[in-house]
Amino acid sequence: EGVPLLPGKLRIIDQTRLPQELVYLELDDVDEIVAAIRRLSVRGAPAIGCAAALGLAACAQHLEEKELLEKAQEIADQLAASRPTAVNLFWALERCLSHLTRCDKATAEELVREGLAILEEDIQMCRAIGSHGAPLIKEGMGVLTHCNAGALATGDFGTALSPMYVAHTAGRKFTVYSDETRPLNQGSRLTAWELQRAGIDVVTICDNMAAQVMKEGRIDLIIVGSDRIAANGDAANKIGTYGLAVLAKHHGIPFYVAAPTSTIDSSLATGDLIPIEIRDPAEVGAAEGVRVYNPAFDVTPNELISGIITEGGLHRPPYGFA
Amino acid sequence: EGVPLLPGKLRIIDQTRLPQELVYLELDDVDEIVAAIRRLSVRGAPAIGCAAALGLAACAQHLEEKELLEKAQEIADQLAASRPTAVNLFWALERCLSHLTRCDKATAEELVREGLAILEEDIQMCRAIGSHGAPLIKEGMGVLTHCNAGALATGDFGTALSPMYVAHTAGRKFTVYSDETRPLNQGSRLTAWELQRAGIDVVTICDNMAAQVMKEGRIDLIIVGSDRIAANGDAANKIGTYGLAVLAKHHGIPFYVAAPTSTIDSSLATGDLIPIEIRDPAEVGAAEGVRVYNPAFDVTPNELISGIITEGGLHRPPYGFA
Repeated sequence: EGVPLLPGKLRIIDQTRLPQELVYLELDDVDEIVAAIRRLSVRGAPAIGCAAALGLAACAQHLEEKELLEKAQEIADQLAASRPTAVNLFWALERCLSHLTRCDKATAEELVREGLAILEEDIQMCRAIGSHGAPLIKEGMGVLTHCNAGALATGDFGTALSPMYVAHTAGRKFTVYSDETRPLNQGSRLTAWELQRAGIDVVTICDNMAAQVMKEGRIDLIIVGSDRIAANGDAANKIGTYGLAVLAKHHGIPFYVAAPTSTIDSSLATGDLIPIEIRDPAEVGAAEGVRVYNPAFDVTPNELISGIITEGGLHRPPYGFA
Repeated sequence: EGVPLLPGKLRIIDQTRLPQELVYLELDDVDEIVAAIRRLSVRGAPAIGCAAALGLAACAQHLEEKELLEKAQEIADQLAASRPTAVNLFWALERCLSHLTRCDKATAEELVREGLAILEEDIQMCRAIGSHGAPLIKEGMGVLTHCNAGALATGDFGTALSPMYVAHTAGRKFTVYSDETRPLNQGSRLTAWELQRAGIDVVTICDNMAAQVMKEGRIDLIIVGSDRIAANGDAANKIGTYGLAVLAKHHGIPFYVAAPTSTIDSSLATGDLIPIEIRDPAEVGAAEGVRVYNPAFDVTPNELISGIITEGGLHRPPYGFA
């Protein structure tokens, strides 16, 4: 749902306009794609990876064949500079370029093929994460999630939300508590919207209510996504995730991260090495002239993570991703 | 600043319109005063107490003397029903009625006198809390606060913010991190506004950034207000406070509550007995048709509180308020 491809164009939902309007963007200009990624029209680490790969392919269709390799590299560099934290972005672009250099002939069609392969693998990845994570969700549970790691963040069922879709499809009833996720409200705008559309019982809360909701015994399980995971299992995700993990530990609630293996950056020994994007103060909306600090991500240390669900299975600590 | 009295009218800042507009309301009708308290035009436990007392006096001026005692009781009952959590509201109204029954002659002037006495004591209380709390704030510290327990919440310097005003007046430099405080943004709208106006360095963050800001070592001290404190020191305050206290413990950061003794409800053995107001889902702003859970307060258990600052001094655990 995040990133279908129109022939010749990258076709994405403009997520900044949800839930009020369901509007699709059709893009084949690198500046427009970079702008769309930057303003979060497409977001979520896997979806950004797919959008970058298919966006690169869409842009490459306007190139002459003899300059394709060189120009594709330039376009990829521009796309890679759009967001700093999600490793899938760099991973997808490198994979496409690497494919191009290995081809008999470097063509835009080859980039389309590789982009579609990434999208198809993303769909398979989502389903596999859903299958591995769904057994965690029992009848009647309350499940908390943060931000949006759902269908809108990926090519399919999402990562953190995929176990919920799979458990729902299997007929289990449960309630999802969806953090609003300030400052851009991906939880209340996107997660609540897509889960409700799928017929899953969902309750929106403000981020600062999570502790109280846990204390009241409403939460049995927490599942969040991740934008980058270090070799030791430290996981970067939307700002607020680390705090939830601390609260989960205090309340004895299991805390899981769901993400594709493409999110794992084994070149980083620990999460301290993951760069954290600091975004525009204007997103927060403060009184005139007041300073704002707006980190977009935080890193949850591995000791607070009960398990990491990837398409390969459910990993338990100690984590050691090579 | 919260609640000056215009002759014949209760005069309050309409806090719902801050920081865009500084507008005063002048009220002497009980329904209007109840509505103003309910929509949070005046808010903060001490300010609600002062506003209720002076509001009762303003309304009473329209009563005939022979019916004054009886009607004042009716008006007080209406005012008391405006908000359920803050004990100052009930305390102030009972004190005014009690004063009335003890007077030689029950008149509106007596209610004005008692209301002004409550306001004057509130001002003294704020200054005393500031003096007792200010030594906690050292040069160069980062101090986190939540919601607004400042000048706008009281008759004067506030409760949680009063130590900051006193330390600032004494020439110390420090940075206040002000939680946005969803869903009504009292932190970004009111606390940041009033601190900046006073020349104190203030940074607005979203509620879900507090854990990250603590992890980065930016916070040395947390001071929050309270709407009701049980005999054992459990303290109700704006939703999100309890979560902050858990995060503070995890990061080894001292966590203080500042509140007048009128906030202490020694009739309640523990915080479990404090009623929590559940407010309108519309305040949160969710996708159409999505359920919302909107508790306005939470209770921080005494074991997470490093100290409680009242006008009487700095209380250390174990707390036993009689």
